[in-house]
Amino acid sequence: MEKNILLTIEYDGTKFSGWQKQPEKRTVQGEIERALSFVCNQDIKINGTSRTDAGVHANGQRANFKADIKIPTDRLKLAVNNILCGSKNALNAVGDVRIVDAEEKSQEFHARFDAKGKKYIYRIIGGGESNIFKRNYAYQISEHLNAEAMQEAAEYMIGKKDFRSFRAAGGDENQTTVRTIKSIEVLKTISLHGVPTPDKSKVKQKQHFDIEVIGDGFLYNMVRIMVGTLVEVGLGKITPRAVPFIIESCDRQSAGHTAPPQGLYLAEVYYCMI
Amino acid sequence: MEKNILLTIEYDGTKFSGWQKQPEKRTVQGEIERALSFVCNQDIKINGTSRTDAGVHANGQRANFKADIKIPTDRLKLAVNNILCGSKNALNAVGDVRIVDAEEKSQEFHARFDAKGKKYIYRIIGGGESNIFKRNYAYQISEHLNAEAMQEAAEYMIGKKDFRSFRAAGGDENQTTVRTIKSIEVLKTISLHGVPTPDKSKVKQKQHFDIEVIGDGFLYNMVRIMVGTLVEVGLGKITPRAVPFIIESCDRQSAGHTAPPQGLYLAEVYYCMI
Repeated sequence: MEKNILLTIEYDGTKFSGWQKQPEKRTVQGEIERALSFVCNQDIKINGTSRTDAGVHANGQRANFKADIKIPTDRLKLAVNNILCGSKNALNAVGDVRIVDAEEKSQEFHARFDAKGKKYIYRIIGGGESNIFKRNYAYQISEHLNAEAMQEAAEYMIGKKDFRSFRAAGGDENQTTVRTIKSIEVLKTISLHGVPTPDKSKVKQKQHFDIEVIGDGFLYNMVRIMVGTLVEVGLGKITPRAVPFIIESCDRQSAGHTAPPQGLYLAEVYYCMI
Repeated sequence: MEKNILLTIEYDGTKFSGWQKQPEKRTVQGEIERALSFVCNQDIKINGTSRTDAGVHANGQRANFKADIKIPTDRLKLAVNNILCGSKNALNAVGDVRIVDAEEKSQEFHARFDAKGKKYIYRIIGGGESNIFKRNYAYQISEHLNAEAMQEAAEYMIGKKDFRSFRAAGGDENQTTVRTIKSIEVLKTISLHGVPTPDKSKVKQKQHFDIEVIGDGFLYNMVRIMVGTLVEVGLGKITPRAVPFIIESCDRQSAGHTAPPQGLYLAEVYYCMI
């Protein structure tokens, strides 16, 4: 009997050309389909929730597929991860993509169409020299950022609005650009467990932020342009009070730069109303 | 006039075939010599302090070179880093190797022969599922470790001893195996700034350790074998009281496994008596 299986997937986006399968490129979708097809002994195609770009990470990406498979659902995770990891006998074998969970859903369920919202986390390290160990995992900015101004600016982005100013060129021109942002929080985080360094005082002076954004949907590059705008607010280049005007202008040029992909994490997908 | 310049070097060892230059391989020494030779417009050879293995990191590697160069020493760092980083115009351009400092020394100074000691840090994450974002930066162990037993065992390793049991095959058979370990500390560290995850409780349950080892010198793979032995103590496979007998046996077979390279950081080199 055909099952409909929902996967929760975690990946380090550094060495992937993004989520979406492309010929001749290493993509997350491609790697998972290859491993699933091997384990299930048939050609498997998955529907991902979000087509993350190259360099973007995920802790809670979702994808579903339908197939008549013999392997019990609760053993699928381990079997697929053994293939994904490549070196199952190594002492510390962890690949850069992994199934976190697999569960059966009703036949009608679809990972993308049934998503009611998503949470993204964007990681920023400010106020210091860049750290080579974080280069693929955060947006590192040498200047200090004004976190209070950033939070003030972020609050103007909450609500049901036309986010055309925060959409990268290349998105579908015909789609609606109205989205609802449920919350944005600029969370200061603490890292006592920094990279080992002879001069520990350096680590402490740095600012660590996670910007958590929850919304019902996002336009192409929307989170990264929101974050780029907030960073410019943090640097004093844009005032928080300018943000409503940037939104109203419906003009990409009025918003800030597109923050780089390596700070972005797809943290969670919601299938209940958010 | 010929200058003798001492460099302090930081690198993420993940994508290097170790420190030592080898034909057809990307090595830290090779990359730095290439960048230095370009900047100084002459063929530069450097003497590194420690030949770290593939996958091993460094915050405080040292190397010196002698040359009659025109560029002022205080501008060398920036010039070389611009070459090493490869994409100096990118928003967030950080390569995986970088000069942290450059200073002039007397003509007699040699980065390796004059080193009086070194500090290594070995990073362990225990008690939980492995984290894909840490796979190249720590030794991840699913079991919980007994930190008190590890510290007790570590104390038996302190002092001037024959560390033959902690030397990998392949080391120079004729060299003395007596070394002085000044201190070993099993430091519990805190990570509130963990990887973003929907279930924050998971992060908190994990154990984060930095094992800091300071000594006057180290045999081939010595720190990794010491750490592998301490991990087996933490797992209850070896008792702390067995460690003096392991040392006395002068037999590699009696010690624990060799911990993987990705947890190891060369943190500091000392040129004064430690």
